[in-house]
Amino acid sequence: MVTLLSNTDSDFTARFEDFITARRDDDQDVSDVVRAILTDVRTRGDVAVFEYTSRFDKLDLTPETIRVSPEELANAKSHCAPDVLQALKTAAERIDSFHRRHLPEDDNYTDDAGVSLGARWTPVAAAGIYVPGGKAVYPSSVLMNAMPAKCAGVERIVMVVPAPNGDLNPLVLAAAELAGITEIYKIGGAQAIGALAYGTESISPVDVITGPGNAFVAAAKREVFGTVGIDMIAGPSEILVVADGQNNPRWIAMDLLSQAEHDEVAQAILITDDADFARATCDAVEDHLKTLPRADIARKSWNDHGAVIVVETLDQAIPLVNRLAPEHLELAIDAPRDMAAKIPNAGSIFLGRYTPEAIGDYVAGPNHVLPTARSARFSSGLNVLNFMKRNTLIECTRESLAQIGPAAMTLAEEEGLQAHGRSIGIRLNNAPTEGD
Amino acid sequence: MVTLLSNTDSDFTARFEDFITARRDDDQDVSDVVRAILTDVRTRGDVAVFEYTSRFDKLDLTPETIRVSPEELANAKSHCAPDVLQALKTAAERIDSFHRRHLPEDDNYTDDAGVSLGARWTPVAAAGIYVPGGKAVYPSSVLMNAMPAKCAGVERIVMVVPAPNGDLNPLVLAAAELAGITEIYKIGGAQAIGALAYGTESISPVDVITGPGNAFVAAAKREVFGTVGIDMIAGPSEILVVADGQNNPRWIAMDLLSQAEHDEVAQAILITDDADFARATCDAVEDHLKTLPRADIARKSWNDHGAVIVVETLDQAIPLVNRLAPEHLELAIDAPRDMAAKIPNAGSIFLGRYTPEAIGDYVAGPNHVLPTARSARFSSGLNVLNFMKRNTLIECTRESLAQIGPAAMTLAEEEGLQAHGRSIGIRLNNAPTEGD
Repeated sequence: MVTLLSNTDSDFTARFEDFITARRDDDQDVSDVVRAILTDVRTRGDVAVFEYTSRFDKLDLTPETIRVSPEELANAKSHCAPDVLQALKTAAERIDSFHRRHLPEDDNYTDDAGVSLGARWTPVAAAGIYVPGGKAVYPSSVLMNAMPAKCAGVERIVMVVPAPNGDLNPLVLAAAELAGITEIYKIGGAQAIGALAYGTESISPVDVITGPGNAFVAAAKREVFGTVGIDMIAGPSEILVVADGQNNPRWIAMDLLSQAEHDEVAQAILITDDADFARATCDAVEDHLKTLPRADIARKSWNDHGAVIVVETLDQAIPLVNRLAPEHLELAIDAPRDMAAKIPNAGSIFLGRYTPEAIGDYVAGPNHVLPTARSARFSSGLNVLNFMKRNTLIECTRESLAQIGPAAMTLAEEEGLQAHGRSIGIRLNNAPTEGD
Repeated sequence: MVTLLSNTDSDFTARFEDFITARRDDDQDVSDVVRAILTDVRTRGDVAVFEYTSRFDKLDLTPETIRVSPEELANAKSHCAPDVLQALKTAAERIDSFHRRHLPEDDNYTDDAGVSLGARWTPVAAAGIYVPGGKAVYPSSVLMNAMPAKCAGVERIVMVVPAPNGDLNPLVLAAAELAGITEIYKIGGAQAIGALAYGTESISPVDVITGPGNAFVAAAKREVFGTVGIDMIAGPSEILVVADGQNNPRWIAMDLLSQAEHDEVAQAILITDDADFARATCDAVEDHLKTLPRADIARKSWNDHGAVIVVETLDQAIPLVNRLAPEHLELAIDAPRDMAAKIPNAGSIFLGRYTPEAIGDYVAGPNHVLPTARSARFSSGLNVLNFMKRNTLIECTRESLAQIGPAAMTLAEEEGLQAHGRSIGIRLNNAPTEGD
């Protein structure tokens, strides 16, 4: 049964905290298995990757067949319906437009002391994108991961996608082609993450790995973090809808189910100031479930992890939302921007009654890779900065070094790092070439 | 003996790759111990923190004494020399000026389809800064971690610093006070990371943890990553100096030693196109070592991990530098900016003959927390963005949803997520309130 809470209940605070801290992940500890696979790939390269692919994906690869051929790639589109390709193109263009706006600017200046300082952004040389294979087929994820890398200026974008029994989804390949990815390998799991991080005979290593995956992929990403950059460890998807009584309960119910249908451990929460609306929405959920193809998954998610929280006034929702820090937040209320201004902790915010969360999953433009499990408190959705890094630049002249150097020498001495201080002093007390 | 390489050697490529992949860390696996401590702190809170502090730091704490008192904090300054306090103040002001320039801008616009889109930056609510205690006393690290958080607008900045036998360094406290930190706890190690991440009776949890520490602290940060944000897993410090023969070898030798003196596993590398200069610099290193207080550490670092690489032309240094992706890069050459433009992979770049790396450790302004162990390929030095996160905002009207919605519905159907598609369709085919 869906959890029902009201902030007038005497035990509300305790029950809300219990709800927040309840773990939805099965918390499967696969790290030992994953560590062994990674070590094996690091040590034995291609041979290890081929063995694991044969075992887990029932696919025998060779150095000649591990990579998707130009023919396979070109051929994929012919297996996709034109309207679907057109929709993908619309999505790609809108994602590109949004992300391109957020390329960071460099900063170069000379300060009052005569020191030239700079902050300069550059793209990583190579990015690897993990795309799940098998039953789940998400061409939208290909675009959401690849387009920010492309906007960032990454020269080499590599995709890995498992091909169980040799099957690859044509739409996933079509999305890759649309994003300009030509280097695609038919591998998945921890072995694919290892290949991207360490490199093998067939695959040059990359600098950053992004993209969703199962528990093994997530554990492998955590393990290689430091050798490469990673986006985040994604947890199950979440939606929080704040809605007043002026909404159509059938709309809001469908929004809740659009998250619940992802996964049995997905989470959908409604906060409303209208108890009647809450009841009507619950009824509408049951009604929608009668006709929804993924009803079994959605029902389990809703019953096990869903919640309806009734508050006296919508203002009281604000601290609850910030505590929950949801991945997706819908504000189906009047003046949604007023409330949004008071909510720093949410991955993406969907404003008003005509912005269902699903629009952000595909074509709105912002990324659908968003922080889960309350990490919106401190992290951001995928964006161009995940594929860039910043260098700082410092240039002193003899004069400016003379001005700021003594303070540095004082602090170095205090920290007991004498060579630090002397590397400044030697320049202030001596000529640049020895013997002068 | 310091490694000597020349790119005219027939085996240069192989030896350079060996040098790059050699591990300097002792790679101590403390993760089991750390996991046990974290679980204990998470479960038992204060009691566990007090027990570990008693055992590791020989300090018995209570809820009344775990926090540095306002008196202790106010008192610290009186134990510091005025010139040192003044140097700290100079450093704080310059770090503040540099970081404040890089506050990101929000972006809000309505596109051609009539969809309002936004990207909004907000600071995290609370940041925790780890400061090592004991023999190493680095007030500069307090500033380098705290000032970006302060510039980002973080309202609650918490510091943890171990106080072995109750001893706290007054300069570390003075630096904290200068940075405006008033919430300081006398704890360290994995137990302090656990307290910051999970919270205890005495310490509210934070959202982001930054700052350097030993192997236990590093492992604990890796473990709590996801529950909180972290800056990076710092490895031993590194410097790479590219210098032509026009430098004073005694200056460059001191720069190399300023890194080597940090730690026996620190690394200092010289790349030059002048074999005579290389020899003269090696001689100068030996000469400096005679008088350097930390000579034992510096000598071991230089002999075990240092390298001198002679190239035929300075241009040949560029790909080597990008492969090494050093934390600190000095370009002691003519026209250093021309070369810097070709080097994306370096944490911080020190330009010209009058910019010793040490100036960046203290007062130049840019952060001294920088990516190590080749991670400058994909990560950045600490900056305001480490203490902020970005939300995206989407607002459709009925009209703009009608324009972009169908493409989303097509893709949702293709991905087998029918509730996604229906949450859009129901809005386009029905009135906002039921029964209309």
